[in-house]
Amino acid sequence: MKRSFIREILEHTNSNTISFAGGLPDPSLFPTKELKECTKKVFEDTSSLQYGNSMGYLPLRNHIAQFYTKKGFPTSKDNILITTGSQQALDIICRYYSGSTITIERPSYLGALNIFKLNNMLIQTVKLTKNGIDINLLKKSIKNSKLTYLIPDFQNPSSICYTKFNRLEVAKLLDSSNTILIEDSPYSQLYFETQQKPISWLLEDKSYHIGSFSKILSPSLRVGWIRANKKLLEPLVAYKEAMDLHTSVITQKIIYEYLKDAQTLELHLNKLRVKYKEKMLYFSKELDCYLPSFSYEKPKGGMFIYGALENIDTSKFLQKCLQNGVVYVPGIEFGGEYNEIRFNFTNNSLQDITKGLKRIKKSLEETI
Amino acid sequence: MKRSFIREILEHTNSNTISFAGGLPDPSLFPTKELKECTKKVFEDTSSLQYGNSMGYLPLRNHIAQFYTKKGFPTSKDNILITTGSQQALDIICRYYSGSTITIERPSYLGALNIFKLNNMLIQTVKLTKNGIDINLLKKSIKNSKLTYLIPDFQNPSSICYTKFNRLEVAKLLDSSNTILIEDSPYSQLYFETQQKPISWLLEDKSYHIGSFSKILSPSLRVGWIRANKKLLEPLVAYKEAMDLHTSVITQKIIYEYLKDAQTLELHLNKLRVKYKEKMLYFSKELDCYLPSFSYEKPKGGMFIYGALENIDTSKFLQKCLQNGVVYVPGIEFGGEYNEIRFNFTNNSLQDITKGLKRIKKSLEETI
Repeated sequence: MKRSFIREILEHTNSNTISFAGGLPDPSLFPTKELKECTKKVFEDTSSLQYGNSMGYLPLRNHIAQFYTKKGFPTSKDNILITTGSQQALDIICRYYSGSTITIERPSYLGALNIFKLNNMLIQTVKLTKNGIDINLLKKSIKNSKLTYLIPDFQNPSSICYTKFNRLEVAKLLDSSNTILIEDSPYSQLYFETQQKPISWLLEDKSYHIGSFSKILSPSLRVGWIRANKKLLEPLVAYKEAMDLHTSVITQKIIYEYLKDAQTLELHLNKLRVKYKEKMLYFSKELDCYLPSFSYEKPKGGMFIYGALENIDTSKFLQKCLQNGVVYVPGIEFGGEYNEIRFNFTNNSLQDITKGLKRIKKSLEETI
Repeated sequence: MKRSFIREILEHTNSNTISFAGGLPDPSLFPTKELKECTKKVFEDTSSLQYGNSMGYLPLRNHIAQFYTKKGFPTSKDNILITTGSQQALDIICRYYSGSTITIERPSYLGALNIFKLNNMLIQTVKLTKNGIDINLLKKSIKNSKLTYLIPDFQNPSSICYTKFNRLEVAKLLDSSNTILIEDSPYSQLYFETQQKPISWLLEDKSYHIGSFSKILSPSLRVGWIRANKKLLEPLVAYKEAMDLHTSVITQKIIYEYLKDAQTLELHLNKLRVKYKEKMLYFSKELDCYLPSFSYEKPKGGMFIYGALENIDTSKFLQKCLQNGVVYVPGIEFGGEYNEIRFNFTNNSLQDITKGLKRIKKSLEETI
């Protein structure tokens, strides 16, 4: 097992390095004050400190279930398993199907690739198009795939958002196949204009929908979940239990307190959407100014800008950038092309975005 | 994969059931007020809410390292990997060695047995004696074992504490073998009179020492750790990362704040030791009164009383007890004998201990 490129990079940069590498939220937008208030309430009840239930804190499971139901996807607490972040959610599922063949997008999420390797899965990749996944190639690939792993909303790393038509086609295809969908949706709430319906809602009997509070509240809470029908979910509980008994009751309760007032989350999400769109537009503007040879499409949500730097081997180029105090993730790490780059646009301040891109421009000038 | 007997039992009892089943601390002894104060400080720093380092929160790793060093086992932060509870610690190690042969105590910790199954390990058991592990049988077993898993302090479920002589013999034996020791020590600090030196301290190059804050502070925090030399520890980091990226920074920081004042923990531990000893003595007295046919030895620490109920199949008998509103774990679940029982003595109030044991007495009368 190799460590994750991003996490190793993050540990080796110093405080002067500007990092566009990690998928980090903007820390200035964390609802710190509100979460602090919620925490006070949590500590008023001693049971918050005791062992908890393996499937998760019941009121939180109910709340998440209601969230789906209200949106038009009938769900009960028995369909929700709380996990220690969505990273664990994916690992639990893949561990259960360990050694199976899995169809995934190319490029795909680095942390997922590590999970697939850890679980000895046979990976088949299908190229992404600007509208979603290539349906003809998907059709061929799923013929012998037990699982299909997709991130339809502002995909990581490509930021592609599957069109409505593409989603319907994927659902139709998977419905008539023997493959089970794993739909990972960490960025679904971070849309700038409109939200698309998840594919799994059209595949109730053969899908796992993975959710997370990391990108919308705080990654440090380490709370995610799996939504699936009972038959698919139940065998996973023994795995969850063996892996870490249960997720922290304290962090689950903090989230539950925060969610109690439906308005609070909605206002916070609206703020995130506005601020992240502003940051994306700013990043794009600066990209066009300092790196005109970088070709990309503006994302419609999420946390990343993905594109190609003309004729540059971005893995080799990263060494030069590191020397100049700026980092990103080369596309090749995700299974992308040699000249591609993923930039995170959410984490840095506007000043640092400009500063970082200037450093890349300088590195480029020193290279060519 | 089967679910854990205890966790399933815990989920199916109602509020009137008295449970001696789980290894639950006494909730009235949680340092709730102090942890609440620590939490306030944690939320003053926005970085508490951001993604963290895969190896854990650096000041906490340093603090744990110092703890070992002060006790005479030189340790640096590079020897400490923070995990999501000690359950995950054991799973990470076993996942790295998946499919290997492992020598374990008989009986042994249920949660560990599930981990071994999940990682396709070949289990060889060695019977425990009153002084520790049977050295001659251990010698035979480790010949073809990659790993040896032991809980030398107030073992779960037997409560046996290895003698100094037995520890030295084990260390000598393992030192001259090719097996690596996994020493699990969740109860080490819960001694009533004296503390024994961990075996791993005599086997620096071939041991993993697993620690946890669950039994001494709060299980809900889900923070444990692995102490090992760099060569053994480093390959585990990629596993930890793939499994849940990192452990909650919030809960790690709460613990670090709590530990900052060395006196606070020591006073708390002294209180736990006194209170748990009182509870153990009370439980023993009531056992002798209501269940005189139960044979056992008083533990010298930990959370359990383990023994045998003369001529009773304790698995079958549990059904009757459940009807009468009391539960325990039959020894057979841990790989023990058909007539053995593990009682947790820490979780219930004195009144409930008496009430629960009376219910068992009643069940016994209805059975015979």
